[in-house]
Amino acid sequence: MDKVNRRTTLKLMGMGAALLMASGRVRAQGTPTADQVIQGKDPRLIVHNSRTGVLETPLELLREHERTPKEILFIRNNQVLPQGKTLEPIAPDGWIISIEGMVENAQAFDAKILKDLPQVEVEMVLQCSGNGRSFFARAQRASGTQWKHGGMGNVVFKGVPFKVLVEHLKLNIYPGAKYVTVNGKDQPPTLQAPDFEHSVPLEEALEKGILALEMNGEPLPAAHGGPVRFVMPGFYGTMNVKWVDRIRFDVAETFNHNQIPRYRVPNHPIQPGSEFNFTFENSRPNWHQKVKSVIFAPLDGEEVKAGNVLVRGVAWNDGLVPIEAVLVSTDQGRTWIRAKLTSPQSPYAWFHWETYVALSRGEREIWVQAVDKLGRAQPLDGTVHWNPRGYEWNGVDIVKVKVV
Amino acid sequence: MDKVNRRTTLKLMGMGAALLMASGRVRAQGTPTADQVIQGKDPRLIVHNSRTGVLETPLELLREHERTPKEILFIRNNQVLPQGKTLEPIAPDGWIISIEGMVENAQAFDAKILKDLPQVEVEMVLQCSGNGRSFFARAQRASGTQWKHGGMGNVVFKGVPFKVLVEHLKLNIYPGAKYVTVNGKDQPPTLQAPDFEHSVPLEEALEKGILALEMNGEPLPAAHGGPVRFVMPGFYGTMNVKWVDRIRFDVAETFNHNQIPRYRVPNHPIQPGSEFNFTFENSRPNWHQKVKSVIFAPLDGEEVKAGNVLVRGVAWNDGLVPIEAVLVSTDQGRTWIRAKLTSPQSPYAWFHWETYVALSRGEREIWVQAVDKLGRAQPLDGTVHWNPRGYEWNGVDIVKVKVV
Repeated sequence: MDKVNRRTTLKLMGMGAALLMASGRVRAQGTPTADQVIQGKDPRLIVHNSRTGVLETPLELLREHERTPKEILFIRNNQVLPQGKTLEPIAPDGWIISIEGMVENAQAFDAKILKDLPQVEVEMVLQCSGNGRSFFARAQRASGTQWKHGGMGNVVFKGVPFKVLVEHLKLNIYPGAKYVTVNGKDQPPTLQAPDFEHSVPLEEALEKGILALEMNGEPLPAAHGGPVRFVMPGFYGTMNVKWVDRIRFDVAETFNHNQIPRYRVPNHPIQPGSEFNFTFENSRPNWHQKVKSVIFAPLDGEEVKAGNVLVRGVAWNDGLVPIEAVLVSTDQGRTWIRAKLTSPQSPYAWFHWETYVALSRGEREIWVQAVDKLGRAQPLDGTVHWNPRGYEWNGVDIVKVKVV
Repeated sequence: MDKVNRRTTLKLMGMGAALLMASGRVRAQGTPTADQVIQGKDPRLIVHNSRTGVLETPLELLREHERTPKEILFIRNNQVLPQGKTLEPIAPDGWIISIEGMVENAQAFDAKILKDLPQVEVEMVLQCSGNGRSFFARAQRASGTQWKHGGMGNVVFKGVPFKVLVEHLKLNIYPGAKYVTVNGKDQPPTLQAPDFEHSVPLEEALEKGILALEMNGEPLPAAHGGPVRFVMPGFYGTMNVKWVDRIRFDVAETFNHNQIPRYRVPNHPIQPGSEFNFTFENSRPNWHQKVKSVIFAPLDGEEVKAGNVLVRGVAWNDGLVPIEAVLVSTDQGRTWIRAKLTSPQSPYAWFHWETYVALSRGEREIWVQAVDKLGRAQPLDGTVHWNPRGYEWNGVDIVKVKVV
């Protein structure tokens, strides 16, 4: 989209002059703060894009809460739902969701019926698949929002299991259906642009998928996909489609631009900076979250006092098996200490870890690596997973501190 | 097969009385030694099965050679080629190999033509997919030969790239072909038993597959699959089919009992001891070798002198990316030291590592964990990958030593 189109769109959407001046790259005087982009957000969030709303949580805010409050939870919108730029909820009553595709009895239903169906609650890490993208620049910059670590949070969703809905509606899914493709009420900025939708494996959707109505014990904020968000615990955030209004049963993944080539990584490593022609065979969508850890303290660039320093943070994966160990190194990987690990109730939530390390005066690095029970670990050099759009960064986390 | 059948078979095969008394479990007086089972083998090899020939290399022999000599290289035969129980070679002249399946110009050729085609040499770890099976017993014993670590070796194969043969014969492979299924001249013990064959992905076979005629610079010994073995570097040994006489292009993997349910692991972890109904969808064949390391010194049960002790061994994976780090722990994983790592020329060969650790008097454990550049590591508790037939063990290696 060129600048003129962008401005026209903004005008059509009836937004104020302040927004017109803003973008993720130009932070001039008058750049809107997070609460001006999404009503109700904490103004201390980092604004990457004020048009659709792309907000990052600084780690010093994120680490203060076991469950990330809605006010500071990151936002990554591809498209805008005009009434969605607020933390206020939208009532599900009168919100129509259609069931389409490989099903004998295609139909539509009012989302208000979800309120009366059995519900489940799941605590989980919600993470943008671009989170950490900026670190790929250690090898070669990847295109897209240059997230540090704040494109993630730990939240609790509550809603109706997808399987329960399928049973309630007595849907006769054809045996050949292998994927479920979910679309939201948000629309692309132009008629020519492809509408955002994502496919996930049907079997896993029936096992884990939730039509979420609540987050952290409150009605789901509009900005986070209310009234109904399709939640897939353990999957990257983008697969948790907001503002659900169409659910399609498919024999194959959607050919939508946002399923291929976007939101996809090569099956095998490629050279940083190289081009890649994405096919369904040579690549896979941003589905299961890779094992990852983040250092909450000390923060990168911080000054700490020499001696025994408490290092702490969180680690998580796709929830398939627990995190088994978190190792910390203060000598660039020559030796490692196993941190104390605390397991959450939910396999999809973050695990806390902490350990003391002895630091002497000078510029020091702290490295952390998580490994799960399947032996899936963070690569020491995360740029091995470089991909043109910079998804799924999961390299060993590194902070540099000044020890005084 | 019950005992009577087994004996009958042995008689039919015209083998001596000494062999009748032998098995991997009963080591009575008169049990044949390795050189009696396979002519030319080192008698110090462990005999697991004297009927088909299943021999394990003790680590104290294995570690003495950079390239594992034919005399001590492990043997795992599923079936017997009567003339194959010797380290002597078999001449390729007059050895007919047929090309079948999804190919326009199915045909047969004399293996002697391979001698005049361009050849390549590859150093690689050859490893039985059951290697390490005995360690699953930490959770629950898995059925099959109770291998320790000696079902592996590092060898050099030389032969004609599969792709070169395909081009030489001008094979017109149909576009739908996705797998290549290889069968050997060896036969099952009864007409009712399924003949041994394996399928590998066609794309990888064209990229890496070799029709090997030599091992370690000599004509391929009959016992190791001579005159022609289908070698797939980075794949488990079982996929390196011996005594090749049929090559079939397939749209799908073979339904042969040895491709499913044998030589297969579940896609997702299952509880140790549980049953599993293998399907093509819920499981995968023993193709790519998992990242793994083995401690060569000190050996399990050895006595060592207190002080700085040299710990050394090897590590390897499927050759897709290099081994990135090898970590050693002497306090059951609380702290780890990164070992010195030496990279081989070939990505498929073993990597040597070594480090000194300080050991005080008492019963001590040494643990080692390898991690590759993709972040694929050995699970601390290898039994997480438990599967009914005990394939693909790759847990952190542990030796117990007495420090005096």
